[in-house]
Amino acid sequence: MRVLGVDPGLTRCGVGVVEGTPGRPLTLVGVGVIRTPADMDLSRRLLAIETGLEQWLAEHQPEAVAVERVFSQHNVSTVMGTAQASAVAMLVAARHGLPVALHTPSEVKAAISGSGRAGKDQVATMVARVLRLAEPPKPADAADAAALAICHIWRGTANSRLAAAIAKQR
Amino acid sequence: MRVLGVDPGLTRCGVGVVEGTPGRPLTLVGVGVIRTPADMDLSRRLLAIETGLEQWLAEHQPEAVAVERVFSQHNVSTVMGTAQASAVAMLVAARHGLPVALHTPSEVKAAISGSGRAGKDQVATMVARVLRLAEPPKPADAADAAALAICHIWRGTANSRLAAAIAKQR
Repeated sequence: MRVLGVDPGLTRCGVGVVEGTPGRPLTLVGVGVIRTPADMDLSRRLLAIETGLEQWLAEHQPEAVAVERVFSQHNVSTVMGTAQASAVAMLVAARHGLPVALHTPSEVKAAISGSGRAGKDQVATMVARVLRLAEPPKPADAADAAALAICHIWRGTANSRLAAAIAKQR
Repeated sequence: MRVLGVDPGLTRCGVGVVEGTPGRPLTLVGVGVIRTPADMDLSRRLLAIETGLEQWLAEHQPEAVAVERVFSQHNVSTVMGTAQASAVAMLVAARHGLPVALHTPSEVKAAISGSGRAGKDQVATMVARVLRLAEPPKPADAADAAALAICHIWRGTANSRLAAAIAKQR
């Protein structure tokens, strides 16, 4: 399974493609950051993020996209931009018929490090260990995107079972 | 000048196309609502909104798009969806090379009714009067979208002068 993780943001949108299956070593296919200048018109920034994500999809052909779930509670000043960047990620994935999963930061931290309260450095260190890298991907947004993809692969089986059970209930 | 106003929302995204110039009677070209079901996957809802907006652009060929500016302060429960729908509207406009303007609800109310605190009904009544309609467009989201387009046309001249002055300062 090949997953594109997206850590949404206007200034830095982290992207990471991870391949593998639960219980086996995972491989980092690619990791990076899509940047847009803060003084650019908001609509053009969203377009630049779309263009960047389209390139990542075209180059790496993931089967699923995992996006960080944005909450309105924290970081009120940046949350709107994050929500808008995440909308672009979801939209691009949907346009390509790819399944989109949202994972909260706590879910990602818990999946990667065993604790929902793990710090940024701890998550980055675990990402490097899981993907057998000499050092964590940089900047932090890139490491977070890779962590999202890892989380999605590891939670995949459990989530599919849950979804199937819910579907059966209905 | 022909403007597409967008009152962003996931369940009901209001759209209204208004044509005219400040100081002359304005004409309603079209008004409506793009709806997406609440039980649909979020990424598919955003895709449906994109498809709907693309159809409005193709059919009515506006020269500018006016989107309601979303604030994170109020309606915390729905604000994320509103922000995401607005991102789709901005993105679609940018992709077509159209200028995008954001107007706050207060700006729209003030432009339409003379008061930034006008109620929904008051705005809808003024929209009908300005556009010489027998009754306000329904539902409220459609009327709000038309109000955004009117606001944009009426504020256009002042905004352009302001933008030019700011650009000159830099």
